[in-house]
Amino acid sequence: MLDAIKRLREKTKAGMMDCKKAIKEAAGNVEKAIEILRKRGIKLASEKSSRVTKQGCVESYIHMNGKIGVLVEINCETDFVARNEEFRKFSKDIAMQIAAARPLYVKKENVPEGVLEKEREILAASMKDKPKEALEKIIDGRIEKFYEETCLLEQPFIKDPKIKIKDILHSLIAKIGENIVIRRFSRYQLGEEQ
Amino acid sequence: MLDAIKRLREKTKAGMMDCKKAIKEAAGNVEKAIEILRKRGIKLASEKSSRVTKQGCVESYIHMNGKIGVLVEINCETDFVARNEEFRKFSKDIAMQIAAARPLYVKKENVPEGVLEKEREILAASMKDKPKEALEKIIDGRIEKFYEETCLLEQPFIKDPKIKIKDILHSLIAKIGENIVIRRFSRYQLGEEQ
Repeated sequence: MLDAIKRLREKTKAGMMDCKKAIKEAAGNVEKAIEILRKRGIKLASEKSSRVTKQGCVESYIHMNGKIGVLVEINCETDFVARNEEFRKFSKDIAMQIAAARPLYVKKENVPEGVLEKEREILAASMKDKPKEALEKIIDGRIEKFYEETCLLEQPFIKDPKIKIKDILHSLIAKIGENIVIRRFSRYQLGEEQ
Repeated sequence: MLDAIKRLREKTKAGMMDCKKAIKEAAGNVEKAIEILRKRGIKLASEKSSRVTKQGCVESYIHMNGKIGVLVEINCETDFVARNEEFRKFSKDIAMQIAAARPLYVKKENVPEGVLEKEREILAASMKDKPKEALEKIIDGRIEKFYEETCLLEQPFIKDPKIKIKDILHSLIAKIGENIVIRRFSRYQLGEEQ
């Protein structure tokens, strides 16, 4: 209970008594307590100030004299690590990877369900003559291939195709001892359709 | 129908007969016809080659050692102009402008109707005591101000606030004699919410 009150205060910066009452009413559920506070019209800490908590860096890479450009945000936990040379080298490698290997998503979970369904549908339709059991296996394999092509973390590293981007990320996390997240990226190719 | 077939061929580089059949099956819908072709396993031209039609450059700008990053695509008509020094200087200025003045849209027309309505609603609610005729004038003025803050082309240039970005763009177009378009941009600020 005390722990929940503390977390609620950290999240909302609302007064002690308000937080106590809200937590009691929400039976210890912090999210519910936030709702209760909001419904009462109690002013919560501006969402923005509570948002800007992450460290890291925004890195860019311009390829072929401006024909392709990449912007990527990579987060870590402390400003100390953000200035670390290996972290910076990793960020540069990732920007270059995105330029060369044109991923569409950071990770598997970011592929929209509709895109996956469409992909499965098209694959199935193009292999109608195959027996059903074989078909499912083939499609699963092709979907893995699809992930490898479209998801940054699943892609083979352009400088060393034997390892995947997620492997480099994981060994960097292990080495530095801080969580590191590739958060978002943009890749522009001159004249492409949006 | 003929027009749709032509567009399908341009987009896919698939054979004439295949395109004819697919368009017929799709009742003239080009996107649907592309799907039909893919389902039949017909190899389409790589998307890349059909997309890259415009010239220009993609420029980036990284501010404060990676706390803010900008990516911007600026188009012109010929590769000759894309390599022009003034065009490049303009691109760099625009990237810096976006980093410093944080626009949300390229131009007025890009502001979604819902955003404008919301803005008007909030302004009206905050000035309920004003007489109606005065109110409308004030709101129009405030909306202009809103454009100046959020639309890149309406913003005062950071290096010379007496002129607007669109003025610099127009004089560059007049000087170079080619149409120039600021097409799209991304601005990442470390840790901000998306």
